[in-house]
Amino acid sequence: MSALIKFKLVIAYDGTAYQGWQVQKIGTGVQEKIEAALGKMFPSVKRIHSSSRTDTGVHALGMVAHLEIPHTEFKMPVARLALALNAFLPDDIRVLLAVRVPDKFHARFDATGKQYRYFVWNHPAMNPLLQNHAWHFPVKLDLAKMREAAKLFLGRHDFKSFAGTRSYEMESNVRTLTRCDIKKSGAQITFIIEGDGFLYKMCRGIVGTLVQVGQGKIPLAKVESILASCDRRVAGMTAPAHGLVLWKVFYSPQRHRDTERKGK
Amino acid sequence: MSALIKFKLVIAYDGTAYQGWQVQKIGTGVQEKIEAALGKMFPSVKRIHSSSRTDTGVHALGMVAHLEIPHTEFKMPVARLALALNAFLPDDIRVLLAVRVPDKFHARFDATGKQYRYFVWNHPAMNPLLQNHAWHFPVKLDLAKMREAAKLFLGRHDFKSFAGTRSYEMESNVRTLTRCDIKKSGAQITFIIEGDGFLYKMCRGIVGTLVQVGQGKIPLAKVESILASCDRRVAGMTAPAHGLVLWKVFYSPQRHRDTERKGK
Repeated sequence: MSALIKFKLVIAYDGTAYQGWQVQKIGTGVQEKIEAALGKMFPSVKRIHSSSRTDTGVHALGMVAHLEIPHTEFKMPVARLALALNAFLPDDIRVLLAVRVPDKFHARFDATGKQYRYFVWNHPAMNPLLQNHAWHFPVKLDLAKMREAAKLFLGRHDFKSFAGTRSYEMESNVRTLTRCDIKKSGAQITFIIEGDGFLYKMCRGIVGTLVQVGQGKIPLAKVESILASCDRRVAGMTAPAHGLVLWKVFYSPQRHRDTERKGK
Repeated sequence: MSALIKFKLVIAYDGTAYQGWQVQKIGTGVQEKIEAALGKMFPSVKRIHSSSRTDTGVHALGMVAHLEIPHTEFKMPVARLALALNAFLPDDIRVLLAVRVPDKFHARFDATGKQYRYFVWNHPAMNPLLQNHAWHFPVKLDLAKMREAAKLFLGRHDFKSFAGTRSYEMESNVRTLTRCDIKKSGAQITFIIEGDGFLYKMCRGIVGTLVQVGQGKIPLAKVESILASCDRRVAGMTAPAHGLVLWKVFYSPQRHRDTERKGK
């Protein structure tokens, strides 16, 4: 038996008060809050390894991370781990699930895909219940046009023109989008974007561009040419961070079957 | 032409920071914030008259109120009134709609019905995005049982046993419930409760009782006997305020056709 037990955590957080996921030099990252909570329970646990990073103000309902706890320090039933960790975490960070995983599991390298959701409140006045969780866009949007444009993003593309100037990966900017749906319920517009991977600010770039399509500022044909250009400078605006939620991280079902979580 | 112009406002607010709707001796009511904003624009306007009151911590997406502005003070296009008021209001209170109404319109007396929605997050860990907007209930609930019990509330009943000890009306406790639906999406349970009127704390009493049914603490037969008893002391618990939203106020369509607002 290994001297370390590996766990997978599914984590939700309201990103409003944090400088993103990652441990920060200035400000606080969500990661360090969780590492501090773990450290109180398991003195030798210093690090968790996440599937993704999120930017300042971005939220998550399905962030995934893995960590290892020495066998000698882990004395509780696994079923109690999430509850115990939550007792040491602030209310805006919750561990939704903590399960044992095989030693070879890696939250980032094993992820086969991710789903983000982006929320827009499209009404002259903002919904006060969604202040920190949706982008207030007061001008009426043409949903039909946006949905047509959304289809253009599906499939395999070099998404460089929809990514931020900074990039975590030095490698390829080619990603495959498997879903880019736009749902509307009253004034609330929800973008559901799923793919095998996302470049830095890519989701917010896609949403910002689609909203400008809906506003009539970017014609459909332009979206195709922006995508083809691979040049960030020609793309549309970046939607603000606080409307974005990392909704779910997918793992190959053979490896791992417990990432299902629906609703909000 | 009348010297006063009558307006109807549809108002949304996050009730977290307020001691309910009504002007308070201690703490702040939503009403006084709106009256202060109106007073800045129209010096002689002192009062608005609402369809309902809400309790400390309760939210609204469709509160309705009426007010009168002297013709001599009202210099802007009606279409700009909501936007102008919002400029004087805190972010957690928004006027969604402001329209002219006939002189005889009364927000409270003309209301023909109301819809409340109550949100429960039914998962061992709370959703941090819903901290102030849903009741965290960690124990698994039996939805089928709750839906059966919900049907018992439909129709005309004396709801005294589901109302708070305080009551605004001295009159009858008989109300007619036309809808008591329970929807589930992942861990989120939504109660949609509609009726011709509601007693003080009645919605929260119904939800609290239904949750106890779902938990197996109150059998179905007991719900009927509680309802028949008209005695508050025998009823179930009162669900906490922060899960409740005044969703919509209905007016007779002949009188008024513009209260439609969907989604959240």
